[in-house]
Amino acid sequence: MSLNEFDIIQQYFSLLTRPRKDVMTGIGDDCALLVPETGKILAVSTDTLVVDRHFLSDVDPASLGHKCLAVNLSDLAAMGAEPCWVTLALTLPEVNENWLDKFSQGFGELANQHKLQLVGGDTTRGPLSITLTVHGQVEQDKVLKRDGARVGDLICVTGTLGQAAQALNNIINGTSVSEKARKALEWPQPRVTTGIALKGQATACIDLSDGLIADLGHICSASKLKAEVEKSAIPGLGNDESLLEPVLTGGDDYELCFTFPEKHKDRLAQIAEQTEVSISVIGRMGEGQGVELIDDAGLIMEMTDKQGYMHFS
Amino acid sequence: MSLNEFDIIQQYFSLLTRPRKDVMTGIGDDCALLVPETGKILAVSTDTLVVDRHFLSDVDPASLGHKCLAVNLSDLAAMGAEPCWVTLALTLPEVNENWLDKFSQGFGELANQHKLQLVGGDTTRGPLSITLTVHGQVEQDKVLKRDGARVGDLICVTGTLGQAAQALNNIINGTSVSEKARKALEWPQPRVTTGIALKGQATACIDLSDGLIADLGHICSASKLKAEVEKSAIPGLGNDESLLEPVLTGGDDYELCFTFPEKHKDRLAQIAEQTEVSISVIGRMGEGQGVELIDDAGLIMEMTDKQGYMHFS
Repeated sequence: MSLNEFDIIQQYFSLLTRPRKDVMTGIGDDCALLVPETGKILAVSTDTLVVDRHFLSDVDPASLGHKCLAVNLSDLAAMGAEPCWVTLALTLPEVNENWLDKFSQGFGELANQHKLQLVGGDTTRGPLSITLTVHGQVEQDKVLKRDGARVGDLICVTGTLGQAAQALNNIINGTSVSEKARKALEWPQPRVTTGIALKGQATACIDLSDGLIADLGHICSASKLKAEVEKSAIPGLGNDESLLEPVLTGGDDYELCFTFPEKHKDRLAQIAEQTEVSISVIGRMGEGQGVELIDDAGLIMEMTDKQGYMHFS
Repeated sequence: MSLNEFDIIQQYFSLLTRPRKDVMTGIGDDCALLVPETGKILAVSTDTLVVDRHFLSDVDPASLGHKCLAVNLSDLAAMGAEPCWVTLALTLPEVNENWLDKFSQGFGELANQHKLQLVGGDTTRGPLSITLTVHGQVEQDKVLKRDGARVGDLICVTGTLGQAAQALNNIINGTSVSEKARKALEWPQPRVTTGIALKGQATACIDLSDGLIADLGHICSASKLKAEVEKSAIPGLGNDESLLEPVLTGGDDYELCFTFPEKHKDRLAQIAEQTEVSISVIGRMGEGQGVELIDDAGLIMEMTDKQGYMHFS
């Protein structure tokens, strides 16, 4: 049985997400028509996942549907924006109904969890590739950016780092992967509610997609400051030196890294509890530039942001 | 020389389009931050072009940069929306600086012509593929949709139909292609200013991407009416029967097809002159369903919207 473009959208995606009141027209017209909230700004992010580059062709389609959306929601989380609308451009080598069923299920569940509506899409035939554009809204004076860190601010991260990168290494090397690490790789949880709780509170924020050193390095360069990170405080690192690379430069964590005024540090525990995620203080912003890693003996390693994950490098 | 992802965005795209006042943050942060105009709604459209499916790998990269944007701007034109922001997801098999130079030039010129700013992007390695998401703004009570046509409304199209499809046929068959037809195929002009001039005036509108029969069929089904089209009035058809297929079902025209109240038909000439495009009245909306084609002898052919261009069929 063959399906045409309209059938695919109709059958798998038009009912995927629950309707929002601010969507005048969703899938099916030339454009989606959306009603922005007065007084808020739009946060928009686009990401592409390509087969054999970002995921393996035999990946569970449900986890792929989840992850491609999680990666994009993580960008909204980093700005403190509330997810609203998403468009999906899906390039498929063939129409595999079982695959579409599972993919749309993984995608739809995460979308509904965050009240995100699918409002537009395009399906084309070609090598498997997925491009999403997510739209969120946030108050202009509360939006989280990269350039607001101040000297003395605490550097914090959510969750545990390096698990996804470690799982990927193990899969590539054919060694065993723990269930927890596989979940971190295939079903990352974007820190949307934590990002929203941090808006107007954190001084700078970024999501960890390219690795701690690279991403914290972006906060440093945007804020024109140095990050002094205590190696022993990084969640997930412990004393296992083999974890150094996945934790510091592996990427694919989708945790938040943010700076926070020390005088309000008691609020961190509240935010962690309220949004059900662990928050670790891993260092402090100082005068200077770049990311410094300080070990237990007080020795300092300078890290460059080139050590993060980069496409095309 | 190899370039990494940040260099590509920096070098080719960050300065591609002129800054708009309503862009707080463009390329370079996790999300673009955009300030919507109070009282307007957002029109958002996504399209993907894939190599060997939508274009040949040896296509002039400047025309490709132009065309991928033109296709998306045409969707905004169909709603009467004013172009504002665009995100670009570019998947490239390799970093070819000559190709990037030309592609970004074709893209940038059309973007600047319509005051559109590139606000976000993602570059990945893989088979050549381009996904754009364009954002426009329009007054809620003036937006053009597909479902507003009324009995007696005139059916109109801009420009000349079938040239792009005819050019593609000739290229595939190795026969000669006129300069004009090649231009229609490779450098389509989205009818943005005409769409804006039609907002609040036309009763329904669509852009001709899948062919007249299919696209006008969408207006018919959304408006629950029939379209009675006079074959001899279709611009580009003439008496050449070999043009029937490209004109009616070829697609790739990116002209507007709209319905217009007959009592205001004198405004059509003004809009045509003002926006420098020809407008042809090709028929009238009536009770019933589907698209009917009436020839000089008064014979009626019923057309189904399945005859338009469809992916995956």
